[in-house]
Amino acid sequence: MHKTSGSRTVRIVLAASVALGGMLWSTVGSLSSATAGAPPGAPPSTIPGAIEYTPEGKQKRPPFWEFRKWIFVGTPVTPNDMNDGKANFPEFHNVYMDPESFAYYQKNGKYRDGTVIVKELVSVGTKEAASGEGYFQGEFIGLEVSVKDSKLFPKDPGNWGFFSYGHSYPLKDVSKPNKIDECNKCHETNAVDFVFSQYYPVLRAANPMSMKK
Amino acid sequence: MHKTSGSRTVRIVLAASVALGGMLWSTVGSLSSATAGAPPGAPPSTIPGAIEYTPEGKQKRPPFWEFRKWIFVGTPVTPNDMNDGKANFPEFHNVYMDPESFAYYQKNGKYRDGTVIVKELVSVGTKEAASGEGYFQGEFIGLEVSVKDSKLFPKDPGNWGFFSYGHSYPLKDVSKPNKIDECNKCHETNAVDFVFSQYYPVLRAANPMSMKK
Repeated sequence: MHKTSGSRTVRIVLAASVALGGMLWSTVGSLSSATAGAPPGAPPSTIPGAIEYTPEGKQKRPPFWEFRKWIFVGTPVTPNDMNDGKANFPEFHNVYMDPESFAYYQKNGKYRDGTVIVKELVSVGTKEAASGEGYFQGEFIGLEVSVKDSKLFPKDPGNWGFFSYGHSYPLKDVSKPNKIDECNKCHETNAVDFVFSQYYPVLRAANPMSMKK
Repeated sequence: MHKTSGSRTVRIVLAASVALGGMLWSTVGSLSSATAGAPPGAPPSTIPGAIEYTPEGKQKRPPFWEFRKWIFVGTPVTPNDMNDGKANFPEFHNVYMDPESFAYYQKNGKYRDGTVIVKELVSVGTKEAASGEGYFQGEFIGLEVSVKDSKLFPKDPGNWGFFSYGHSYPLKDVSKPNKIDECNKCHETNAVDFVFSQYYPVLRAANPMSMKK
């Protein structure tokens, strides 16, 4: 079991390396050099849906109209009114995976290095409509991102790093990695290979064998 | 107000025309000739995400792994346990739009001719998880499709046609158009320009002006 302190040290070293000369850019697959913020001369990333980081190692919030065109995998809803007025993740959670990582998952049943999963939080707008009683999506209120990257998160369990841009607007523009206890521990304990695919029918149907590991 | 009987006549004439020689294929944009079922010599459709029809005018069920890669627009949930044990649309409704029509909508705030919207129905799998109490997606159980097409549905309100492949598996392979009273009337009365975008935050955010029409 890796310790939080060790992981944080690795991140600091990584951030310093990037700041010193961009020498890591050719090997850190999830950093995109095709966009603003990349050091001059850095090679273009070959991974569409790439996530960018600041020189200090903070993740930049992915553009809304990029991830909203990714592969939708599922939507749980944990309404405030079913969680004592304050859900941990209010309230709908629209979850997306970047297309190339999804294609890999569909073929191989596992999450490749560089996989990005975005969870967009949406309020409950109403509980009644022409189609019946229920929960209907209101407004966008939050955003969280997880990335599997063995080079950026070599000591995090499963090599998954977790980032939050807030649960209410305005969202943060950048996010430092959450501590392992804040996200990773729960994903390691309760999810399937760190992803809650037991609640995402698109992932389960994409590769049923993946659920048996 | 158009009558159901008139619309059905148009469909019958359309189906007959297609069967007689495929002369309509060059003008009916939402029919794809790039796949099985198209008459020999028919020109390829220029609309990705196209929906196919049988010579008798029935719609063919779109392939799962095409529409699941389209643009996700929102997910209401009308659970059976909030609807006297029998929701009209059980239970989660994952809703997608074909990408080219979405791009048009994002730019223009309205639904172009040829727009396809798919509603995939998903059962509630569980009501409790590590993230809290709520509703979590279970298994795929149903599929419905709506298409805006002025040539196929010239007399249907808004030119929207509606199709259902069932609310439980196994799904139907083909679907005849539903009667106007079955779907269109409710969409005309309760939705915004025939689409329930008031519950689809992705559509609202894509073009906020569209909600003011």
